[in-house]
Amino acid sequence: MKVARVRVSGKTSTVVVKGRSVHLVRGGPFGKLAPTGERFPLSKVQLLPPTQPSKILAIRVNYRSHAGDRPAPERPEPFLKAPNSLIGHGEPIVIPADAGRVDAEGEVVAVIGRRAKHVSEERVDDYVFGYTAGNDVSAREWQAGDGQWWRAKSADTFTSVGPWIETDLGPERIPVRTRVDGKEVQAADTSELIHSIRSCIARITKYVTLEPGDLIFTGTPGTTAEIRPGVTVEVEVDGVGVLSNPVIAEEPRG
Amino acid sequence: MKVARVRVSGKTSTVVVKGRSVHLVRGGPFGKLAPTGERFPLSKVQLLPPTQPSKILAIRVNYRSHAGDRPAPERPEPFLKAPNSLIGHGEPIVIPADAGRVDAEGEVVAVIGRRAKHVSEERVDDYVFGYTAGNDVSAREWQAGDGQWWRAKSADTFTSVGPWIETDLGPERIPVRTRVDGKEVQAADTSELIHSIRSCIARITKYVTLEPGDLIFTGTPGTTAEIRPGVTVEVEVDGVGVLSNPVIAEEPRG
Repeated sequence: MKVARVRVSGKTSTVVVKGRSVHLVRGGPFGKLAPTGERFPLSKVQLLPPTQPSKILAIRVNYRSHAGDRPAPERPEPFLKAPNSLIGHGEPIVIPADAGRVDAEGEVVAVIGRRAKHVSEERVDDYVFGYTAGNDVSAREWQAGDGQWWRAKSADTFTSVGPWIETDLGPERIPVRTRVDGKEVQAADTSELIHSIRSCIARITKYVTLEPGDLIFTGTPGTTAEIRPGVTVEVEVDGVGVLSNPVIAEEPRG
Repeated sequence: MKVARVRVSGKTSTVVVKGRSVHLVRGGPFGKLAPTGERFPLSKVQLLPPTQPSKILAIRVNYRSHAGDRPAPERPEPFLKAPNSLIGHGEPIVIPADAGRVDAEGEVVAVIGRRAKHVSEERVDDYVFGYTAGNDVSAREWQAGDGQWWRAKSADTFTSVGPWIETDLGPERIPVRTRVDGKEVQAADTSELIHSIRSCIARITKYVTLEPGDLIFTGTPGTTAEIRPGVTVEVEVDGVGVLSNPVIAEEPRG
């Protein structure tokens, strides 16, 4: 099932996406998804980030193809992203004037469905609501030069997710591809992860309580590509769909 | 005025603290604070973290006395803390079994009152609702050994704030002291900050939109002290009050 959050008729609703229609359901995404009977063409709704997470974690260097000369981390190495950075499908990624080089990082993103603490790897699937596509937008100079990755990974608009959550996917082998202006720049699947999605989430819950709606970016493969104002970047996750965002420059400040 | 969030008579309320009483007000802390007429003795309410922030940022190495041999950062260097780590006055700080050395970091904490982006240093005060005391609990081995400070600074219970927000304080010279079992281990005031509170907040808003309730930890002075299970740690901010938390060990897992 594909579950989205949309803006339609002036209000925000959870919907189930079926073909080219969205069907409104009562309550949030983690309830019973009981239909209200209302439906709209997909083309008439604005897709929002599919959840409103209390937090976002991401795993650094989790594909060997991305590690390059760096040693593969012995254990999952998470970092935090902040919710101010969140945008949905179709919203612009805004590059700050002084950001320097900014890259796209296409990723498979796990969406947490139940409060999770001290969850074993074997039980992680019970706490995952589904998967979506994500772009962990990264300012490389800030990443290298700042003490911690606060603006490098969490400047406004630097976390794109969507277009919706697919609830019927297993984590073992989810293909993900990134395209810049239609040209493929990254391609892999989650069977190539150094640390499996289950082991990453289990490790996080050893220390950090996850809440429904929280997002786990699972790592980016290969060599990432720069995104400049004017391009469109797409992250395609098989079984989910295509997350597309235009890239623009921040307006100069008076 | 002292504004707190409390649990009383089975519900969560915003209150104004006057002497040994709390006066309930309608709505949240950023509204009109109109009294409902209900009041309770302070001793009968449970103090909660004074806001429910969408995010928490903290400034690393912002007192020369804390920098030691390290060069003072040329600009404010923020990092992220995650809301799962938040606890209030009186709640236990829980030390995970494998955390190694954990230190207290007593700090003055700014509470954001209005959405803030691209705010100049001169206008920062218009966006600050008030100040509170904070303890940026820090696991030193994780801080040194992990790629980023996700669990070192954001393990559950690693961010204590309270007991309430004082709205009538200027940022220039706020004294802060930390005590472990009554013994003073840190003492400074915000006039000693390398980067002023206003300049830190202005810099953050250049890249990150702050929301009402967001918390900015402004830096910790001097040499920090280890906190072990069994001790009580207090952070006192003049004009605010004393934030006190017992420290306990995480229960062993079967």
